Amino acid sequence: MTATVPDPAVASGREPASGALGVAVLGHSFMGKAHSNAWRNVNAFYPTPRVAQKVLVGRDAGHVAEAARRYGWEESGTDWRSVLERDDIHVVDICTPGHLHADMAVAALEAGKHVLVEKPLANTVAEAERMVAAAAAARARGVRAMVGFNYRRVPALALARDLIADGRVGRVRQVRVSYLQDWLADEHAPMTWRLRRETAGSGALGDLASHAVDQVRFLLDSPVTSVSGTLTTFVPTRQGADGPEPVTVDDAAWATLRTASGAVVSLEVSRCATGRKNALQIEVYGSLGGLRFDLERLNELELFDAAAAPGTQGYGRVLVTEETHPYVGAWWPPGHVLGWDHTFTSQAADLLRAIDTGAPAAPGFEDGLEVQRVLGAVTDSAARSGATVHL
Amino acid sequence: MTATVPDPAVASGREPASGALGVAVLGHSFMGKAHSNAWRNVNAFYPTPRVAQKVLVGRDAGHVAEAARRYGWEESGTDWRSVLERDDIHVVDICTPGHLHADMAVAALEAGKHVLVEKPLANTVAEAERMVAAAAAARARGVRAMVGFNYRRVPALALARDLIADGRVGRVRQVRVSYLQDWLADEHAPMTWRLRRETAGSGALGDLASHAVDQVRFLLDSPVTSVSGTLTTFVPTRQGADGPEPVTVDDAAWATLRTASGAVVSLEVSRCATGRKNALQIEVYGSLGGLRFDLERLNELELFDAAAAPGTQGYGRVLVTEETHPYVGAWWPPGHVLGWDHTFTSQAADLLRAIDTGAPAAPGFEDGLEVQRVLGAVTDSAARSGATVHL
Amino acid sequence: MTATVPDPAVASGREPASGALGVAVLGHSFMGKAHSNAWRNVNAFYPTPRVAQKVLVGRDAGHVAEAARRYGWEESGTDWRSVLERDDIHVVDICTPGHLHADMAVAALEAGKHVLVEKPLANTVAEAERMVAAAAAARARGVRAMVGFNYRRVPALALARDLIADGRVGRVRQVRVSYLQDWLADEHAPMTWRLRRETAGSGALGDLASHAVDQVRFLLDSPVTSVSGTLTTFVPTRQGADGPEPVTVDDAAWATLRTASGAVVSLEVSRCATGRKNALQIEVYGSLGGLRFDLERLNELELFDAAAAPGTQGYGRVLVTEETHPYVGAWWPPGHVLGWDHTFTSQAADLLRAIDTGAPAAPGFEDGLEVQRVLGAVTDSAARSGATVHL
Amino acid sequence: MTATVPDPAVASGREPASGALGVAVLGHSFMGKAHSNAWRNVNAFYPTPRVAQKVLVGRDAGHVAEAARRYGWEESGTDWRSVLERDDIHVVDICTPGHLHADMAVAALEAGKHVLVEKPLANTVAEAERMVAAAAAARARGVRAMVGFNYRRVPALALARDLIADGRVGRVRQVRVSYLQDWLADEHAPMTWRLRRETAGSGALGDLASHAVDQVRFLLDSPVTSVSGTLTTFVPTRQGADGPEPVTVDDAAWATLRTASGAVVSLEVSRCATGRKNALQIEVYGSLGGLRFDLERLNELELFDAAAAPGTQGYGRVLVTEETHPYVGAWWPPGHVLGWDHTFTSQAADLLRAIDTGAPAAPGFEDGLEVQRVLGAVTDSAARSGATVHL
Repeated sequence: MTATVPDPAVASGREPASGALGVAVLGHSFMGKAHSNAWRNVNAFYPTPRVAQKVLVGRDAGHVAEAARRYGWEESGTDWRSVLERDDIHVVDICTPGHLHADMAVAALEAGKHVLVEKPLANTVAEAERMVAAAAAARARGVRAMVGFNYRRVPALALARDLIADGRVGRVRQVRVSYLQDWLADEHAPMTWRLRRETAGSGALGDLASHAVDQVRFLLDSPVTSVSGTLTTFVPTRQGADGPEPVTVDDAAWATLRTASGAVVSLEVSRCATGRKNALQIEVYGSLGGLRFDLERLNELELFDAAAAPGTQGYGRVLVTEETHPYVGAWWPPGHVLGWDHTFTSQAADLLRAIDTGAPAAPGFEDGLEVQRVLGAVTDSAARSGATVHL
Repeated sequence: MTATVPDPAVASGREPASGALGVAVLGHSFMGKAHSNAWRNVNAFYPTPRVAQKVLVGRDAGHVAEAARRYGWEESGTDWRSVLERDDIHVVDICTPGHLHADMAVAALEAGKHVLVEKPLANTVAEAERMVAAAAAARARGVRAMVGFNYRRVPALALARDLIADGRVGRVRQVRVSYLQDWLADEHAPMTWRLRRETAGSGALGDLASHAVDQVRFLLDSPVTSVSGTLTTFVPTRQGADGPEPVTVDDAAWATLRTASGAVVSLEVSRCATGRKNALQIEVYGSLGGLRFDLERLNELELFDAAAAPGTQGYGRVLVTEETHPYVGAWWPPGHVLGWDHTFTSQAADLLRAIDTGAPAAPGFEDGLEVQRVLGAVTDSAARSGATVHL
Repeated sequence: MTATVPDPAVASGREPASGALGVAVLGHSFMGKAHSNAWRNVNAFYPTPRVAQKVLVGRDAGHVAEAARRYGWEESGTDWRSVLERDDIHVVDICTPGHLHADMAVAALEAGKHVLVEKPLANTVAEAERMVAAAAAARARGVRAMVGFNYRRVPALALARDLIADGRVGRVRQVRVSYLQDWLADEHAPMTWRLRRETAGSGALGDLASHAVDQVRFLLDSPVTSVSGTLTTFVPTRQGADGPEPVTVDDAAWATLRTASGAVVSLEVSRCATGRKNALQIEVYGSLGGLRFDLERLNELELFDAAAAPGTQGYGRVLVTEETHPYVGAWWPPGHVLGWDHTFTSQAADLLRAIDTGAPAAPGFEDGLEVQRVLGAVTDSAARSGATVHL
Repeated sequence: MTATVPDPAVASGREPASGALGVAVLGHSFMGKAHSNAWRNVNAFYPTPRVAQKVLVGRDAGHVAEAARRYGWEESGTDWRSVLERDDIHVVDICTPGHLHADMAVAALEAGKHVLVEKPLANTVAEAERMVAAAAAARARGVRAMVGFNYRRVPALALARDLIADGRVGRVRQVRVSYLQDWLADEHAPMTWRLRRETAGSGALGDLASHAVDQVRFLLDSPVTSVSGTLTTFVPTRQGADGPEPVTVDDAAWATLRTASGAVVSLEVSRCATGRKNALQIEVYGSLGGLRFDLERLNELELFDAAAAPGTQGYGRVLVTEETHPYVGAWWPPGHVLGWDHTFTSQAADLLRAIDTGAPAAPGFEDGLEVQRVLGAVTDSAARSGATVHL
């Protein structure tokens, strides 16, 4: 005996008449794949409103059709503006290159769609400010806007934030955050659009430091108030399609930040850190304890408790896979580790919960803007020989 | 402009008229959730035949309907035999308790369905032999049968096997494999069906050592020829619903195995290894190198190359997330780690490829039977005070 | 203004008329060098009776004279028996090959000398029993006898013993101990006396398992009651000076031990564990916690406390360099790590304290004998196809 | 048969008539103990000229006499100037507080003594310059002067330097060096002379960054050319003997350095890094590889080789205990780890070799001066809000 699956959600009244929130994703390459994975799976793990994978949008009709088929979308399309006119689309998820974010997000918000924008929020502070204004206006109409700092949904980092908020490490004094990759360590790695200022805005700074700065703000819950920094391009020329071409963005960046709460943060990001693949590493030192995290081992958090019994203190390796840990209850039993992509599914769940309950979506566009301002201050300080810039 | 997504696979002629292979999963608790996740996602990552999540089967109509809705199934049902009669079901995936495996798998194979059985293959050698016979008969008719040793799809372990097969560690002499958990370390943990011999067959031996023995066979590609072992129940009585009750399965097991290739393998499994959550740890020592793996850090493989430059030899930590690593190309760029559940999706892909190409499904039921025989030999040896049992 | 250094110890009445305990070391190769280092340094770190490095004894007059000069001895000699007749020698420290231990130790004890014997105590149980008898007789005359299981003086292991004794891990159920080296992994490594049964007694078993078994007894403070084991020689023939020669000792050994306290211990030792240099690794799993140690990182002890706050439990890495840790107070401030040789200096201090206070010297010859009996039981079990041998 | 130990060194003509180089150590607390240990042991391990531990000098006659007795000195004294007049003193080793270094070292050099000065070379650049001048004058007369950056003798760091010099990591681009301790993390830790500018000069900067900067210069063999930095005192007031007192030195310091070779170095030191005991951590990223070191695991060096076989690249953990590794041959067989104090013995050996062969002593006072200049530039930059200071 079989039965077609009923949809209890319809009866809950939380969703529109169609029985599910219709989602559109704009962009279908790396981030589009990751976000598609999130929408395909979110209802299987989280008790959120139901979603329908309505449409995937891209520039090339053939490519996007193939991607839509693979990733589980009902339809594909090439005209993002027409998507905004559809009544069956309730959420617009923007995974396009950064310079397109502002126009798409503002239009979507004005059309009454809830919006998720992949990080960084925008390429410039001006764009980001325009987006924040649109989000504020939309919020008044019950529309949610979120920026995709997905690492906030790494259980170990969410746990770290909780522990800090609960005072488990005391007053946070010193933070070390680095995000190290090595895909440009080889000087023969070719030129790409990511290495031109006009297309990419910046290099490691925008790409990697944006995550790092957001984590500092997330973990410490305190704004950055001043910045001293420097930038470097280790390989100034790379081989392009038409011969050698100058690299006009940074390969690596360094900064010292101070927060309103009195912490000092050292920040270092690089695409030339040979042998490091995706090493977002964070150390937090407080008056009562310390924390350490490495994205390459994202299921683990190291914790030092200065109040533990003398003689047996030491950094403990917490496997953050217990049911009581943030986000973990939705997934698997203890010891069954999560991967990178699970963060996007949890992010989608958070957005859906915000839509459902009317709570603010976090991180909001304001958070994205603040990160942009800190990155801008690094650039400014670097241009001034490292002199401190106040925010 | 939008377009409904075309299905190129239909045109390939690889699938039946319906355009997709219909899948039924029997069982909807922990393993049913994990296997559902695999079927929901396999087409998004692997270029296999398309699948349709037709029906999820369970004992309780309400529970299975709710699970089916969450996990993306078209229908739910309570009668597994009726599923075998349907023409639109091509694959039957058995996630029920072990004592049900044999009847379900044999019936499904006889009905012409491809079958995936979650490990362990069966609770007894006799059942497993019956299943192997059915699989052999079915194979002659082009039907595939696979047992779900999902850890063969951990990229680091598949890489380890490749490295060993390529001679990178030379002749394998010594293997250490342990699978340590701690959910029974607390003596107040209550009685469950898993701790009664009549329902569970055995304890840590069947549950954990089955994975460990399969890995030994997988990595070394050589059969186990003799076994000496012992079993222990550290906490002989636990609190049941009706008062204290004897624990009749092992909490931990130890064995020394020898393989046809001349290796000696130490095996240790436990549910009382305090602080270890899911630690399947494997060390391989060969004449030219060594390997080390830990499931709690499943994206990593440690490799020692005795032929490397003297003075700089050492165990290297390989982050097994490169596009060239087994299975990884289907997923994310370097450094973006996978989790436990990805192994099931890759397992589903392997089965689909076997169905598609006519290649044998591996590991087959014969592999499951061999693992059962080794576990049986451990029990026999333990009953004979550790004296060696030859297989 | 300078002053010759007074010797307060003389006034304490703790030493003989000469003002210091005269020490003789028999043997001047690897162990002789390590023990010489201990005697040269013990007074600098520990408030023990003063010692005088009287004489170093070896077979070759020239070699031992050169060694004596380098290692700080007043004299060198070639006749160990004449040393026993000297009134200015109070301590005899035996660092010769194992088959010489019994005669030397018994004679020294009968001559009224305090004796330290490098491990293993002897090559056979019969020799060890003779030594124990001599030590018992000597003890009645106030003479001390100690066997050199120096790893008892690794601060992290002494701490581990203290923690276990204090109940910090609860009832110990399961212990994993392995001692892995790789100097025979290369099949072209040449034949040596260590690989012939007639000279070495056994291979990895006597050399490495002796340390491992002593640690089990030390940490658990409970005797081994039964043993099941097996031995293997991976490379049966090696190149000797006169051509290929059979290897007649084990390259590796495995055993499962049970203790009177109810623990089960897995033991594995090897000289073919490619990439492991001196890896004495110990894991202890108890009802309330766990411990982990690795001699290659001898300043660290990992500790798991099952009673810690749920959600932040994890194995903590304790850097065992605090002043309150065993032995550490004699050395350097926190964070200033010790090496392998410091264990011998601490061992010498322990012997001197026993001499000074009249307390028993631990580990005594009885401990050495017990270890020999366990190793003998492994050999016996191996000869009986792994069947359990009771002690 | 015994024989008094002959002294072959006398016959070599390398030593003065007395048969050994007479050594005096000034200072007998922490560093005096460590240096005494070095002189007591150097001849046992290294084939250098023989030394005689002539005299230990301190301020308090009783304390220094007791220390001299424990540490193996022939005499003790309280007047360092009188020591300089003695013909039997050939080496003067200065372990007193930093403000005394200059006067003592200059006088000793002028008296024709070889001089070793514990780091930092001096408290001010002016003092250091005076010492460099004296050392240059003395060098012309065959007298050696060395500054005690003992970590240059950690085998793993000496190996790192060799690997970099051999081009094994290619062109060095990026270096991360931090030295983290936590003895001031507790805000109740009391006031000491180390926290007053007038006595200590600076805080973590002079104490910890001096080691770090020396390592950068040692490893890269290239001078620092510019500096941007900042300083912080996290706990501005601490309890002194007479009540609360302001802390007038830094608790932590940060800087970005650039070297003549084009590398960018991030530097961070702290005494408030909760849970870090003595963590001098160094990461080197070059065009062809990378290195990582941690003083808390000083026997290990991690190495990444970008030229290794694709698919099996990873940071390898080299246990730097092989006979071929720098300094290791003098000590113990592979796998027998060294501790912190061994670096001082190797340092003494290096000085003795320089004296013996006439080669320059490295690191010389010039190296100490350069480190002081870099630290001064950090202070200057910090005072200018982080603006870059050029050297």
